[in-house]
Amino acid sequence: MKKLINDPQDVVAEALLGIEAARPEVRVDHANRIVYRRDTPKTGKVGLVSGGGSGHEPLHGGFVGLGMLDAACAGQIFTSPTPDQMLEATKGVDSGAGVLHIVKNYTGDVMNFDMAAELAAAETGITVEAVVVNDDVAVEDSLYTAGRRGVGVTVLLEKLVGAAAEEGRSLPDLVTLARTINDSGRSMGMALTSCTVPAAAKPTFELGEDEMELGIGIHGEPGRRRVALVGAREIAEQLMEPVLDDLDFTSSPVIVMLNGMGGTPLVELYLMYGEVAKITDQAGITVARNLVGNYITSLEMAGCSVTLLRADQELINLWDAPVNTAGLRWGI
Amino acid sequence: MKKLINDPQDVVAEALLGIEAARPEVRVDHANRIVYRRDTPKTGKVGLVSGGGSGHEPLHGGFVGLGMLDAACAGQIFTSPTPDQMLEATKGVDSGAGVLHIVKNYTGDVMNFDMAAELAAAETGITVEAVVVNDDVAVEDSLYTAGRRGVGVTVLLEKLVGAAAEEGRSLPDLVTLARTINDSGRSMGMALTSCTVPAAAKPTFELGEDEMELGIGIHGEPGRRRVALVGAREIAEQLMEPVLDDLDFTSSPVIVMLNGMGGTPLVELYLMYGEVAKITDQAGITVARNLVGNYITSLEMAGCSVTLLRADQELINLWDAPVNTAGLRWGI
Repeated sequence: MKKLINDPQDVVAEALLGIEAARPEVRVDHANRIVYRRDTPKTGKVGLVSGGGSGHEPLHGGFVGLGMLDAACAGQIFTSPTPDQMLEATKGVDSGAGVLHIVKNYTGDVMNFDMAAELAAAETGITVEAVVVNDDVAVEDSLYTAGRRGVGVTVLLEKLVGAAAEEGRSLPDLVTLARTINDSGRSMGMALTSCTVPAAAKPTFELGEDEMELGIGIHGEPGRRRVALVGAREIAEQLMEPVLDDLDFTSSPVIVMLNGMGGTPLVELYLMYGEVAKITDQAGITVARNLVGNYITSLEMAGCSVTLLRADQELINLWDAPVNTAGLRWGI
Repeated sequence: MKKLINDPQDVVAEALLGIEAARPEVRVDHANRIVYRRDTPKTGKVGLVSGGGSGHEPLHGGFVGLGMLDAACAGQIFTSPTPDQMLEATKGVDSGAGVLHIVKNYTGDVMNFDMAAELAAAETGITVEAVVVNDDVAVEDSLYTAGRRGVGVTVLLEKLVGAAAEEGRSLPDLVTLARTINDSGRSMGMALTSCTVPAAAKPTFELGEDEMELGIGIHGEPGRRRVALVGAREIAEQLMEPVLDDLDFTSSPVIVMLNGMGGTPLVELYLMYGEVAKITDQAGITVARNLVGNYITSLEMAGCSVTLLRADQELINLWDAPVNTAGLRWGI
């Protein structure tokens, strides 16, 4: 295992020190491992809280800041944060306008955010709602989920709902918006190589030199099938086909994200985006906006995922609104 | 070799297709492999041209756009572009105010940009100046250079001089500014793993499971020494010590870039930045701005580099000016 770390047990705590040193727009509660937007809570604004296992950076701590999240709870690598962390973050961001939990569909995350919401209601009277993201078309159930896994749409949802929260929209409005976004997006991923969880010190799985894993999860959990490694064109087809089969993306403009899994260089992501763009062109899909880069990763895994989201003019406007985070920044 | 590519010979051409599909602010001359800012040439503005071997993305094509470059010439992977490409780009960006070539100090790049400048003078009368970036403290001469290699300062220089060009400053002013920036910055890098050039299909070098290469070049060329792999804290010290020994960074604020080599996940880069920040704190260095991410890469190499640049208030203001490129974006 070759990593830029000190003790494997300290990776998350020390990465939070680095985020805090690097980013003036956040402050970190190190005891609770929560990244807060520096100016939260903001009077009249619904607080947005997300979180999950670490190892997917910039998700979620790198998406805290103006126009995205108010707080992100960092679990250990690939391990859900605790209900106590989520409760603390919920209290920390509430200004009286309520709090929305943005939860990726993994059993631990869903259970712990549920528990945090119950504790918040019982202890504090804060109104908490949740949206569970489940956009991964690869598998119906998986190692860590009942139902589809939450992947790339989480990034887009945090941006779009973040912009809407910034406008001062109410909690019920944001819940409706968030559920619409989740229903309007689909993702599929693949891996060329495994990742290595620092505490495990060995690869999560093994892939032969001529193999790839299609439909991989962001924790290295198995996908649809292990298949022969093919070229970028065919990989793009194998990712896009199940996405396009699952939802109609021709009836409105879309936002496309071509996401790297952490260890894939940008030259390959650009090339892959070119292949995806050919497929959307041929399918008569109008791409209104796109993102190409590392946004929801799986440590140093090599591979990529593609996410499509139907986006009407309201969503495009929210997309274009200012954002100032480690992972996404424009208009500021 | 496991990569998201089609034919190894087509990697650069196909990555350019992807950049063009993804980024509305650029257009691509595919025959000459030049990424242009869509609105170049802009009357009265000095044209900024850079370029070099591919495989370092987002450098340079991902830095074309408002507030940075007007054009970037893409060579094959780790291979200098030709004088013809550079001449064509020079013609393409000149509005009569002259053209500045931003050249990393590698023998092929320097020779070819020189030749392009001579051809431009002879054929077109365009006034061309050049700045050669040579900020790498690792080695005095190397496999591909006489003198120090050009690495991380190139990214910062393209941003800062790009902002100054946007203000309408003259070519002589920009040359002075660019040389000051080059003189004010230093970098040092390291690798945990090699990269694999697609056409070679095997790793450029071999590193044992317990080794790292200190002072690595961005083409995998040898560094200062091959040493035992140590923890992030000690790696940060081994990178920062030669940088701080080479130039005084305590007498003015600095911009710090903690750059990933392409295959290093963001969680490790955040952690490394935390270690670098401890060292700058202890050394009494004021960090005014920072960048943490993949900016000048070496395909899928795992590792990082650190760059420090002395930045007075003029440079900080240029840093904060709007930029709109694939690799750096703010204020837009």
